[in-house]
Amino acid sequence: MKGRKLLMIPGPIEFEPEVISAMAVATTSHAVPNFIEVFGNSLALMKKIWMAPNGQPFIVAGSGTLAMDMAAANLVEKGDTVLVISTGYFGERFRDILERYGAKTTLLKAAIGETVDLAVIEEALKIKNYKMLTFTHVDTSTGVLVNPEPLAKLANKYNVLSVLDGVCSVAGEEIRQEEWGVDVVLTASQKAIGVPPGLALLVASQRAMKAWKARKTPVLSYYSDWANWYPIMKAYEERRPSYFGTPPVNLIVALETSLKIIAHEGLKNRIERHQRLASAFRASITSLGLKLVPGDKQAANTLTAIYYPENSNGAEFCAKMAANDVIVAGGLLSEIKATYFRVGHMGSVSSKDIIATISAIEQSLDAVGYKFEIGQGLSTFQRALIRLEALR
Amino acid sequence: MKGRKLLMIPGPIEFEPEVISAMAVATTSHAVPNFIEVFGNSLALMKKIWMAPNGQPFIVAGSGTLAMDMAAANLVEKGDTVLVISTGYFGERFRDILERYGAKTTLLKAAIGETVDLAVIEEALKIKNYKMLTFTHVDTSTGVLVNPEPLAKLANKYNVLSVLDGVCSVAGEEIRQEEWGVDVVLTASQKAIGVPPGLALLVASQRAMKAWKARKTPVLSYYSDWANWYPIMKAYEERRPSYFGTPPVNLIVALETSLKIIAHEGLKNRIERHQRLASAFRASITSLGLKLVPGDKQAANTLTAIYYPENSNGAEFCAKMAANDVIVAGGLLSEIKATYFRVGHMGSVSSKDIIATISAIEQSLDAVGYKFEIGQGLSTFQRALIRLEALR
Amino acid sequence: MKGRKLLMIPGPIEFEPEVISAMAVATTSHAVPNFIEVFGNSLALMKKIWMAPNGQPFIVAGSGTLAMDMAAANLVEKGDTVLVISTGYFGERFRDILERYGAKTTLLKAAIGETVDLAVIEEALKIKNYKMLTFTHVDTSTGVLVNPEPLAKLANKYNVLSVLDGVCSVAGEEIRQEEWGVDVVLTASQKAIGVPPGLALLVASQRAMKAWKARKTPVLSYYSDWANWYPIMKAYEERRPSYFGTPPVNLIVALETSLKIIAHEGLKNRIERHQRLASAFRASITSLGLKLVPGDKQAANTLTAIYYPENSNGAEFCAKMAANDVIVAGGLLSEIKATYFRVGHMGSVSSKDIIATISAIEQSLDAVGYKFEIGQGLSTFQRALIRLEALR
Amino acid sequence: MKGRKLLMIPGPIEFEPEVISAMAVATTSHAVPNFIEVFGNSLALMKKIWMAPNGQPFIVAGSGTLAMDMAAANLVEKGDTVLVISTGYFGERFRDILERYGAKTTLLKAAIGETVDLAVIEEALKIKNYKMLTFTHVDTSTGVLVNPEPLAKLANKYNVLSVLDGVCSVAGEEIRQEEWGVDVVLTASQKAIGVPPGLALLVASQRAMKAWKARKTPVLSYYSDWANWYPIMKAYEERRPSYFGTPPVNLIVALETSLKIIAHEGLKNRIERHQRLASAFRASITSLGLKLVPGDKQAANTLTAIYYPENSNGAEFCAKMAANDVIVAGGLLSEIKATYFRVGHMGSVSSKDIIATISAIEQSLDAVGYKFEIGQGLSTFQRALIRLEALR
Repeated sequence: MKGRKLLMIPGPIEFEPEVISAMAVATTSHAVPNFIEVFGNSLALMKKIWMAPNGQPFIVAGSGTLAMDMAAANLVEKGDTVLVISTGYFGERFRDILERYGAKTTLLKAAIGETVDLAVIEEALKIKNYKMLTFTHVDTSTGVLVNPEPLAKLANKYNVLSVLDGVCSVAGEEIRQEEWGVDVVLTASQKAIGVPPGLALLVASQRAMKAWKARKTPVLSYYSDWANWYPIMKAYEERRPSYFGTPPVNLIVALETSLKIIAHEGLKNRIERHQRLASAFRASITSLGLKLVPGDKQAANTLTAIYYPENSNGAEFCAKMAANDVIVAGGLLSEIKATYFRVGHMGSVSSKDIIATISAIEQSLDAVGYKFEIGQGLSTFQRALIRLEALR
Repeated sequence: MKGRKLLMIPGPIEFEPEVISAMAVATTSHAVPNFIEVFGNSLALMKKIWMAPNGQPFIVAGSGTLAMDMAAANLVEKGDTVLVISTGYFGERFRDILERYGAKTTLLKAAIGETVDLAVIEEALKIKNYKMLTFTHVDTSTGVLVNPEPLAKLANKYNVLSVLDGVCSVAGEEIRQEEWGVDVVLTASQKAIGVPPGLALLVASQRAMKAWKARKTPVLSYYSDWANWYPIMKAYEERRPSYFGTPPVNLIVALETSLKIIAHEGLKNRIERHQRLASAFRASITSLGLKLVPGDKQAANTLTAIYYPENSNGAEFCAKMAANDVIVAGGLLSEIKATYFRVGHMGSVSSKDIIATISAIEQSLDAVGYKFEIGQGLSTFQRALIRLEALR
Repeated sequence: MKGRKLLMIPGPIEFEPEVISAMAVATTSHAVPNFIEVFGNSLALMKKIWMAPNGQPFIVAGSGTLAMDMAAANLVEKGDTVLVISTGYFGERFRDILERYGAKTTLLKAAIGETVDLAVIEEALKIKNYKMLTFTHVDTSTGVLVNPEPLAKLANKYNVLSVLDGVCSVAGEEIRQEEWGVDVVLTASQKAIGVPPGLALLVASQRAMKAWKARKTPVLSYYSDWANWYPIMKAYEERRPSYFGTPPVNLIVALETSLKIIAHEGLKNRIERHQRLASAFRASITSLGLKLVPGDKQAANTLTAIYYPENSNGAEFCAKMAANDVIVAGGLLSEIKATYFRVGHMGSVSSKDIIATISAIEQSLDAVGYKFEIGQGLSTFQRALIRLEALR
Repeated sequence: MKGRKLLMIPGPIEFEPEVISAMAVATTSHAVPNFIEVFGNSLALMKKIWMAPNGQPFIVAGSGTLAMDMAAANLVEKGDTVLVISTGYFGERFRDILERYGAKTTLLKAAIGETVDLAVIEEALKIKNYKMLTFTHVDTSTGVLVNPEPLAKLANKYNVLSVLDGVCSVAGEEIRQEEWGVDVVLTASQKAIGVPPGLALLVASQRAMKAWKARKTPVLSYYSDWANWYPIMKAYEERRPSYFGTPPVNLIVALETSLKIIAHEGLKNRIERHQRLASAFRASITSLGLKLVPGDKQAANTLTAIYYPENSNGAEFCAKMAANDVIVAGGLLSEIKATYFRVGHMGSVSSKDIIATISAIEQSLDAVGYKFEIGQGLSTFQRALIRLEALR
């Protein structure tokens, strides 16, 4: 009857015990040697995990939206053109942020659960000169996964800066920032990075840094201006203290802890684990007769968006889930908000977490009167898991 | 990939997060008002949970064996006769302890997985005058559950002191110490009580205290002698500080936390939760074709002892379980040690813990080449759970 | 030889153990009832502690600079005039932020360690129409304390919005936002509020909210725009979930813990404790022959800025302090940076912390060859403390 | 105003933060590899810290009294003669324990605050054959320190087993078990070892183990019998799991943490730190005109026993200490109980802890009307500390 419910929303997630313990290490000064090492090492580990050895990492107190804000505020000047690829709620948010900083945006919006055709994107790039292209790697609202590599190649072909919104993907989906030539990869701490919320994280390519340095007008936002943060990051990378704003010490100690765990698992192992668990979970869900929001070819491995059974009451279903001690998230995309729910399965997620979630889903479906064979979801997951584990 | 494996042995168990946090509250003096209240309240809560409003509770630093030692050392004088009912490893341990303190014991030993027939016990009580009768409520080595009520009644009928070894039962199986007339109910912290190991706990009836006070010879063990601890317990019950040995402050803070959680859940709810989960777990295990050590009428609700499939390698199976991130315990009873394993499911255990365990059992059975329908154990558990929950 | 050194810098500070423990409570969803209550209650407690029952509180992930950024970005439109009162480093930072958002600023800069004369400020207000006046309650770089009440009254007299930068004062110095008529009082978590760094906090008056609503141009920064955060704050105040960016759950749980501790101590008691300890500390420091940066009438109660002895090596002194297990901060104001150090004494600071600091200061002064009577600082503090305690 | 008061009693003490955090690491099985390593390493570290490379260490759940109980129960048979050297409360307790196990004891009792003359002890050893000699290294009730080396040599000269009660000395005072030839050195976790209470610890020499193996009668106490624990300790020393009673997992994880900290500081450094701090503390106390219980040549470095000023109310003084946020212990030795108090200063104690204690002592003396020069205790401590640090 453990009081705590299993947290299966797409962020914050269930964190590793070591990360949670690190939050409660007594706060130290941001200027003492041991913290300088923690901060510097976190920046170094980010470059590894982002696969961007020449990138410029940033760690700043804020939410994931701040990471988007920083990319937009620093790289956009009034009148700049940006092509925004949207696969859900967060594509449109990026559009809003970009426009706030004066961008003229073109929005290519995918049908719900779909991605935008590459040919369509290339066509857009041909027709007009863009300074920048942005896309959401995994849209937290729909669970749609976009393949970044061809997009980044297109951007490079047309000499356009590319920004990958990796809030729901970094450390859960494959990203090779430098190899693919992505200019900014941004995320937040509370998703697959595995650290309580409060940190905006991003790595900028040297090309992005050059573009920023070449600006003709000042960055409109003061807090987001890289001019304030860049010298701080360089200092800590060189293991020197420096001050602009007090860094969120405890969160950064937790961040280093989690980045070390990620490095220890190995990126390949970690991505494949996400893939195995997500694939078995989708098999389980569809075996129960439920439908997924994303089409099968573009389903994310970090979260799954699932339609409620037809004619069922979503709020009642979610309440039953909570009563069964598993917290899932309701819908977020306004067009279909009341018709689906979302399950996060990223970071340190284990098969134990997912099987407990499936058990609760079955109990809740039964409780709301949905007809299905009890145990079907569990046994499907189990068979898929055993099969996928055998292939490792 | 959370580093931590699920701990499903019969103690220590998975503890409530609040209890674990309580372990790390900075240690205070054993003589300051707030600790006096914690200690006093723990003693008061024990009387409630033991259902022994007139009993004398004891909390002493030590393992569960110390609790057995205290019962034996204080109630036995050289030459006293004791009838020992054994349903496994711990029955014989009690015999050894009693004999150390000079008891002449008669051992009634059940067949493996069975209990001793009540008629056999009554016959023994008729034939000879005993001072004391001891039995193991749930034997941790076999998972056999003994029904205490008729045993206690027999003891009372023949004017014999009764000692219930509740190491694996208190706060997990039904116990009504005073109503049933049991003279000592003893346990350890790390089982269904839900606190890390290090505390011996017992409640003695007024009759037991009288028997102790009427001793003609000194208690042979100094550390176990109630004469040292009784005034301390009385003092803290009356919210006065007192000193014999420094109490294990952090463990007692954790104990109060757990006893409050138990009281908050309610004893009836808690016992029934153990019964539902254990019953569904047994159904799941037998649906996989595995056999249980205890006969069905005497299976405990706090742990389950399960035979490995015939011709399988138990050590390999347990290693696979650990590789699947669930820790179970091997066999303990020497006669069958290599042929079975044990799963603890007590304290704050949830259906999530058990379903994760069944998933790992299926994976491990598959890995060692056992043939069965994958998912069968999971779906059987799920159906049984839903059915039992519906009956609440 | 406890590994940990005493943290006596002006933020982050030594936090209450309960606050640090709260950081490690397993992260929950931002949308579940218990967190909604925590967030809502934190907002309610802010209004109490700010003494602004009709104010609009904001809690946003970010550093103290973000709080300044929010005040400036939301209240300033291009061309607005702002009178900036500067008593150190942070006055000039505020000027920079305001100008970023298009303000035309007038800077009234005090001599080092001094405040700007009220008459001078009134003269400035007479000469020109300002939209806003900003001042630093306690400048962290100099330890200069400004009296907010007459400033706020002047602002009201001339119908000017007033912004109090309370980063180093809120919950440590007296503030009566509503009674005094201050329009924005902003701070950061890691100072006298007593929570690890990562939260920007502010309360805006209804007049400030109206001024924001009356804007003719959009807020230039997206992340800082109250339009994004205001509906979220209202929702949590009304105990409804809402989403703009994922709130920093663990920090907010810690914030509520600390705000409750502050409320429990009582604002009056808390302010007077800061005053007593700061006063005795200043007496101790000057008894050693050291000089303070601020003049005696404007010395803050939350930190003290102290000149190194003449001809001494400040870096060596600070290293000795660290070797003596007390961390202090070096100078920050560029004009005198190498000549002074700073000791923070706010939040849950106790006389024990300060006396340990004085002991280390004496040891370090001795180590760098400064001549003084050893023990003089300690005995002066002790006498002053006993005298001040007696007056309570 | 940190809620927590400074704990300056002679155990439990203020523990290192890492040790306290280790208490809350989720409990694991006593049979898994990582715990086996922790337990095995703790035993290995004990041999280093006891300076007994060939000794047999024991770690058992219980209080310090259990450690005494184990030494007595295992080494004494009915009729054995034991010479008990008493320098306070715990000498007499040892006598009681030894007698419980059948020993015929001779008690050599020192005058209060004094030690027993070596010549007197040798005389006793000449007159009669003893099997064993016991003494209290530091008596927690009086703060008297006994020099173990000549005592151990005497014991060896007369072929007598020697038992050092090191409850208040191990890891705080110099002990060279093997070099000096002491047969048993016992202690408890909550003193200078620096771990919350709940562990009885001892190291037995090979000669002691032989004497135990040569017993003709069984050990009277079951729980204390080395026959139960010795195979367990051997197993963990060889990194094999083994079971007699469930070990107190969390306390042992904390123990390893603390033993590593002790080894890292270095025994010589640690002992000298205790000596410096204790010496400066005694100088401070006597400078205030207060008198110490032990004579100057035999004052312990782990605690100090101090007479209240004449005609003062001890209870009132201790209450003032608590009000000043420092917890000290009242008297324990019945003859003088109401006339003195005790301050523990062992383990990770720092000069910061002691100076805070002296400050509170001065405040409390002032509050109860004692006349002295305020600040005298602080400045005396400071001067002594600086002088002693300079001699390092």
